[in-house]
Amino acid sequence: MAKSMSLLWGAGSPPCWRVMIALEEKRLQGYKHKLLSFEKGEHKSQEVLDINPRGQLPAFRHGDNIVNESCAACLYLENQFKSQGTKLIPDGPAEEALVYQRMFEGLTLNDKLNSVIYYEWFVPEEERHESAVKRNREELANELTLWEGYLEKVAAGSYLAGAFSLADVIVFPSVAYAFRFGLSVGRYPKLAKYYRLLKDRPSIKASWPPHWVDSPQGYNCLKDL
Amino acid sequence: MAKSMSLLWGAGSPPCWRVMIALEEKRLQGYKHKLLSFEKGEHKSQEVLDINPRGQLPAFRHGDNIVNESCAACLYLENQFKSQGTKLIPDGPAEEALVYQRMFEGLTLNDKLNSVIYYEWFVPEEERHESAVKRNREELANELTLWEGYLEKVAAGSYLAGAFSLADVIVFPSVAYAFRFGLSVGRYPKLAKYYRLLKDRPSIKASWPPHWVDSPQGYNCLKDL
Repeated sequence: MAKSMSLLWGAGSPPCWRVMIALEEKRLQGYKHKLLSFEKGEHKSQEVLDINPRGQLPAFRHGDNIVNESCAACLYLENQFKSQGTKLIPDGPAEEALVYQRMFEGLTLNDKLNSVIYYEWFVPEEERHESAVKRNREELANELTLWEGYLEKVAAGSYLAGAFSLADVIVFPSVAYAFRFGLSVGRYPKLAKYYRLLKDRPSIKASWPPHWVDSPQGYNCLKDL
Repeated sequence: MAKSMSLLWGAGSPPCWRVMIALEEKRLQGYKHKLLSFEKGEHKSQEVLDINPRGQLPAFRHGDNIVNESCAACLYLENQFKSQGTKLIPDGPAEEALVYQRMFEGLTLNDKLNSVIYYEWFVPEEERHESAVKRNREELANELTLWEGYLEKVAAGSYLAGAFSLADVIVFPSVAYAFRFGLSVGRYPKLAKYYRLLKDRPSIKASWPPHWVDSPQGYNCLKDL
């Protein structure tokens, strides 16, 4: 099965990482993959555009089926390989509700991280404002505090929705991102504990961004958050 | 079943509308609901915050299960009531892939609409730039052109992924929004056809934003797009 799958990806991109974790969890190792460089603009290459007209990574294909949106790809993989590997969506209504809820909230968390970490990438120089930078940072701090609260409510040392689930597949890369960019372990202890719980999980270790291994710490822009 | 459900909603909000369409399609009429006013800030009231700490609408509850993120609520309803009402996620892998893919792309479409229609709502006066307004409009036009292309590829007069599906539940409210705000039927004929195909569907008619009935046309800000 995995042989009919191919993934074009960029290192350190949470959306790409989500799909790679899901592939590992569903025991779909052996899929074809190619690492492309955002810096060189390879996500806008014809090779990507042929699969993803948005010129974004991941670009994922399973046979003739194309699923480029990372959460869509994860849902697709879980549904197509329900009985293989880790069950990523639980059967119980309460657990299922929580998995979906956190999964989609995870997209907001990631957007808010991007709006701080990549402000200068997203906003042209002449449109930048100190007031926007300040507001984005405050909104990210509020968002992270919300997740601290969520983790406080689940059982100690637990995943986001009981057992490991699709919620963790979607959210973990953003949490890893936050700590790579200097988030304070002291001020966000629950998130730090969650990070430690998951970082050595085989699916996550196997898909760890290669350039993070060589240089474990990114630009420390979140340290005062 | 529907009696144990409650929805706090705001009129004309695509996320709220999605959940209401899904409830209709799954034959869950009879749920409790309460219309709140964004203008009066009622989405930040304690009543909402008790269910949705983000202070956003929809705020949806089924018994003790809370699912506020609109796509999460739709996935939850489909999975909990699989054999009831319309089947919103098809079984075939190709169809399923397309439903998930379009559903998540629909979130981008909605974001891009918001960035044009609500620019002055989202961006404080001293941070506004003509260059940003222009770029947002160009990006929205590109986005809409992408959807024109998607609709050109599916069978004539068709839904987004073959039969009516979760993709339509998520995307239709944004398309309705675009036309309400003046999108040109002549320049986006496939989207216009899609809009006409769906607007009288019982689930959509039953959940049509009440203030749109009294005043069918919004501010014409998309007419030149």
